[in-house]
Amino acid sequence: MRPLEDYIVVDFSQFLSGPSAGLRLADLGARVIKIERPETGDICRHLYTSNVIMNGESSVFHAINRNKESFTADLKSEADRAHVWELVKKADVVMHNYRPGVMERLGFDYESVKAVNPDVIYAEISGYGNIGPWKDKPGQDLLLQSLTGLTWLSGNAGGPVPMGLSIIDMLAGTHLTQGILACLVRRSVKGEGALVQVSMLESAYDLQFEAVTTYYYDGLLPQRSETHNAHAYLGAPYGIYQTANGYMSLAMGSIPQLAQLLKCNALLPYSEVAQAFHQRDEIKAILAEHLKTGTTESWLAVLQPADIWCAEVLSWDTLMEQEGFKALEMVQKVTMKDGYQYRTTRCPIRMDGELLTSDIGSPALGQDTQSILKEIIS
Amino acid sequence: MRPLEDYIVVDFSQFLSGPSAGLRLADLGARVIKIERPETGDICRHLYTSNVIMNGESSVFHAINRNKESFTADLKSEADRAHVWELVKKADVVMHNYRPGVMERLGFDYESVKAVNPDVIYAEISGYGNIGPWKDKPGQDLLLQSLTGLTWLSGNAGGPVPMGLSIIDMLAGTHLTQGILACLVRRSVKGEGALVQVSMLESAYDLQFEAVTTYYYDGLLPQRSETHNAHAYLGAPYGIYQTANGYMSLAMGSIPQLAQLLKCNALLPYSEVAQAFHQRDEIKAILAEHLKTGTTESWLAVLQPADIWCAEVLSWDTLMEQEGFKALEMVQKVTMKDGYQYRTTRCPIRMDGELLTSDIGSPALGQDTQSILKEIIS
Repeated sequence: MRPLEDYIVVDFSQFLSGPSAGLRLADLGARVIKIERPETGDICRHLYTSNVIMNGESSVFHAINRNKESFTADLKSEADRAHVWELVKKADVVMHNYRPGVMERLGFDYESVKAVNPDVIYAEISGYGNIGPWKDKPGQDLLLQSLTGLTWLSGNAGGPVPMGLSIIDMLAGTHLTQGILACLVRRSVKGEGALVQVSMLESAYDLQFEAVTTYYYDGLLPQRSETHNAHAYLGAPYGIYQTANGYMSLAMGSIPQLAQLLKCNALLPYSEVAQAFHQRDEIKAILAEHLKTGTTESWLAVLQPADIWCAEVLSWDTLMEQEGFKALEMVQKVTMKDGYQYRTTRCPIRMDGELLTSDIGSPALGQDTQSILKEIIS
Repeated sequence: MRPLEDYIVVDFSQFLSGPSAGLRLADLGARVIKIERPETGDICRHLYTSNVIMNGESSVFHAINRNKESFTADLKSEADRAHVWELVKKADVVMHNYRPGVMERLGFDYESVKAVNPDVIYAEISGYGNIGPWKDKPGQDLLLQSLTGLTWLSGNAGGPVPMGLSIIDMLAGTHLTQGILACLVRRSVKGEGALVQVSMLESAYDLQFEAVTTYYYDGLLPQRSETHNAHAYLGAPYGIYQTANGYMSLAMGSIPQLAQLLKCNALLPYSEVAQAFHQRDEIKAILAEHLKTGTTESWLAVLQPADIWCAEVLSWDTLMEQEGFKALEMVQKVTMKDGYQYRTTRCPIRMDGELLTSDIGSPALGQDTQSILKEIIS
């Protein structure tokens, strides 16, 4: 039995952050009902990446919203609002990711929901928290990366380099999920409801907790290496290097040992471990020149038996050919109600040795409105 | 009351992934007891970044292990093992991040623990799962980034660019936390224990779930823009641009509207929205030249009132001066038992309007061994 079986999540959220939390709750067994506005629905339905359209909607929407139901309601219509209130009364979790104040205007804020459903877990993601002068700014992933210092950690020394995924949306989603689950634990013991709040700003800052703790201590901003940077705070060889036929990564390792294993004489003078940080630019430059002279396979054949942390750099096509990847069965095929099928990832958590898969695709806008109405009225 | 108050976590994990899950559980109220080997302890204690030493140990260790207890035990000594078994019997959660097979050899694997503690939640993080030909490979963050295709998403077109943080460790930690919490919910309802398993490989792949879903559909590997890439799957202007006095980010936006607001005539021919993706290299090049002619403040003053998603690029020093950041109180000061104080981040989740702060610093190696022994014996 899935841990959240019999739990109902009424989800007003859109885009990525909130819906990614809803996806995880669905995979854990909850029934997740998206409340969407008629005609347009979740804006993510038409938030295309690479202009790819799958069954009339964006691939992003299909990836994030599989295994959910869709209920359309015009929150300005009294009849529709009454139906949504019936759903909210039955909900274990109510969630949204509107800007502060919007749910208050719509009337479905925590105080109002709690009045009809006292032990509800009410969860919300904002961009910048509900207080302070930034609270009304738009909570968008790249903007949050820009504002929180995150762009000075990736890439080489020079200008800012963002992380090339909606990393803050996803982290805010994981934090919200954690908060919701923790409060469900408490509720099952104490019968108490809760308000759970996460902001993208706090999630973006939390992501940097290690580096920021170092900064609080020494007051030095991150210094990325001139080339081959993979972590501003780590010494050589930490980075990715080109070889004669591709790329390979080298994590932490002793420079003298590498010099010997790779037969790289130019590295021999770098005998002290401490130099690996302070002289990392020189060391990385020497390594980079040397590694170009052999194939990835030839280097790995020498380094891996010596327990040096290294790996080839794969892309999705080559990754998917690997037996080590296939064995994990990360790919699942899901089917929409109209029969449209697509492949996507599954929940990365295993329970009692079982995969938390589901073959249910994303919902067409409002596909479950009528059946849910029947339930409510009955 | 914190949601996990009265819960005991016995944590055998080291480095980052497992301990980051333990940190979150501690912030949610659990008592987290680190089981460490005598003399050396968690290897992370001496895993320095930038060679920064805080009170004799690494800043990373202090960041991840605040608010925990430390119990030293030699798992090869019968007397110490007997004490650890007493702790394991009392535990609500037992966790580790050893390679597959290690806990079996040590005797504290799930089956053995379950035999004495039937409703335990036993949670483990591996590098590559417990099956398949990769299961014994070293689970290190950069190697996982390299193997899973993640390095082809950040940076501009060309070679692989890793994300400059231990992102996979942290995600695996969040996934483990989710699994543990979900199973605690189920346990509180059904009284059942559980085995929760996460791997860094599955977490790294899950992070790319949107992009990979698009890849399954069209079979095209990610194409980053030539310059100013911030997301391989998004069109212009999405990226970070240099201005006369710094850098700014621009998220999604209509090119014709930008042309008008920025008074950038060279952009006027790009009237179709669809061109923003297919002609993004040209558009980004034009924008980049134009934005250099004014200050960040001057551009934001035009774009923000028009609701264009844009922001300045800050670093930690400038971020911390912002009232919008200060209002969130993300910084907390913690104190070790010996009086050593340091500043670090707090849990990013708010509950019932309260911050989940704690002023307890990281534990010195074995500092709680004696007091815990007294508890066990009594």
